[in-house]
Amino acid sequence: MNLPTAEIVCLGNELLIGVTVNTNATYIGDQLTKLGYEVRRVTAIRDDVDLAADFFIELISRKPNLAIVTGGLGPTYDDIQLEVLYKATGLVLKENIEAIQQIQNYYAKKNLKLTKERRKMSFLPEGSEVLKNNVGGAPGCYFKYSDIDFYCLPGVPTEMKDIFTNYIRPSLKEKTKTELYEVKFQVFDCAESELAPFINEIKTNFQNLYIKSHPAYKDKKGIVIHISGTEEKGKEEVVSAKKKLQDAFLSNLSSISIQEMKD
Amino acid sequence: MNLPTAEIVCLGNELLIGVTVNTNATYIGDQLTKLGYEVRRVTAIRDDVDLAADFFIELISRKPNLAIVTGGLGPTYDDIQLEVLYKATGLVLKENIEAIQQIQNYYAKKNLKLTKERRKMSFLPEGSEVLKNNVGGAPGCYFKYSDIDFYCLPGVPTEMKDIFTNYIRPSLKEKTKTELYEVKFQVFDCAESELAPFINEIKTNFQNLYIKSHPAYKDKKGIVIHISGTEEKGKEEVVSAKKKLQDAFLSNLSSISIQEMKD
Repeated sequence: MNLPTAEIVCLGNELLIGVTVNTNATYIGDQLTKLGYEVRRVTAIRDDVDLAADFFIELISRKPNLAIVTGGLGPTYDDIQLEVLYKATGLVLKENIEAIQQIQNYYAKKNLKLTKERRKMSFLPEGSEVLKNNVGGAPGCYFKYSDIDFYCLPGVPTEMKDIFTNYIRPSLKEKTKTELYEVKFQVFDCAESELAPFINEIKTNFQNLYIKSHPAYKDKKGIVIHISGTEEKGKEEVVSAKKKLQDAFLSNLSSISIQEMKD
Repeated sequence: MNLPTAEIVCLGNELLIGVTVNTNATYIGDQLTKLGYEVRRVTAIRDDVDLAADFFIELISRKPNLAIVTGGLGPTYDDIQLEVLYKATGLVLKENIEAIQQIQNYYAKKNLKLTKERRKMSFLPEGSEVLKNNVGGAPGCYFKYSDIDFYCLPGVPTEMKDIFTNYIRPSLKEKTKTELYEVKFQVFDCAESELAPFINEIKTNFQNLYIKSHPAYKDKKGIVIHISGTEEKGKEEVVSAKKKLQDAFLSNLSSISIQEMKD
């Protein structure tokens, strides 16, 4: 599979010190995968301008097609996402008229004024597009730098999802014009290591597909098998690989049972 | 604060495609922070030998004091952690007698044989120390490379925690001889942006402490304030900063209420 590549970057000390579980990365990873992207890395980094700028300089040199950045767009001193991106790209932060109106409207509804801290959230990289936040104060933004599509989002999950759903998903769908076809099923009463030789063989025969087994953490029973490919060519292959793999399991491992899974 | 630095690395496509929430990183981040480490990055990477080896070459050049690596120690074709580390460090994988005995014993209890796939899990970097896995098949290992302490762990959370608790925590405690002192409290009935100017001021006056506000995602109410420092010098400062910050909030923001929090 030759998919466009993506990285997810999450800013915030709370993700590094065990205070917050990074569910944003899970949500975005799922969405991007379904939109036909290969997510190559998820990185959580500290609220430290120099360390974070170093990270983005590396990211830019890796040239993914897409970078989704969350966290650090708020009003506090450690909300440094755009300062960091300025340091890594040289894109100057300028007060954006559309952003300032959105911020003013948001706080006006709560009878709160436009303080210096809130006004800070309207300074966006020069030439970027404002992405309206319908449920919080900090707008997101989109810009292109060094052929990479950057989408900058707040870290609060409801705000991130609001902007992702309304602006990013439609825009990426337009770009990739592809969606992933995926099947999964569970195998019970066996060890992952018993399935390994059969998976390895199928993998060799279907090199365009993504085939993976992993223990089902949620209910702590069974092994989940994922098989996926891009929709245009992959669907037939996915179905065929699934049938061959299930046949191999059932004819070689007498004690197991197989159960189909839905999304 | 001049703390030893750490990185957490989690291998596994399931972390990038939105199938598994990376709770391992949360657990390890919490533990390392309490043991006095500054966790600088958490990275999730794909089960791809070349991409993952590139990542480790970069990690080694950043010279953290500690790297905790999870995932990819199992029996399947995509369990590539040690192959990747060989590619990045040149440390040859050799069959380890202690590891093979542990693996054999583990499967013997389940009346399962030592297949080629299971045997693969006993090949560890030359000179490394075996870390016994009491709840699963794949042993962990420890080695030092380029002045970095590498701990390699399986990705299944129960197995990772078993090895972390029994081997890694005691060993790191011995090394750092420090633990973090932390207080936190919640502020209700205000926006995070209202607290920002007071936090910024306290932060300027207590530069050795880590002070951060973030929305309380769990119950979606209130803003959580964290203040922490290293135990030997920091405790007094933490207590003093907390009092000053609460006083500033209460005397400037009439509508709020404050509630202390336990761990």
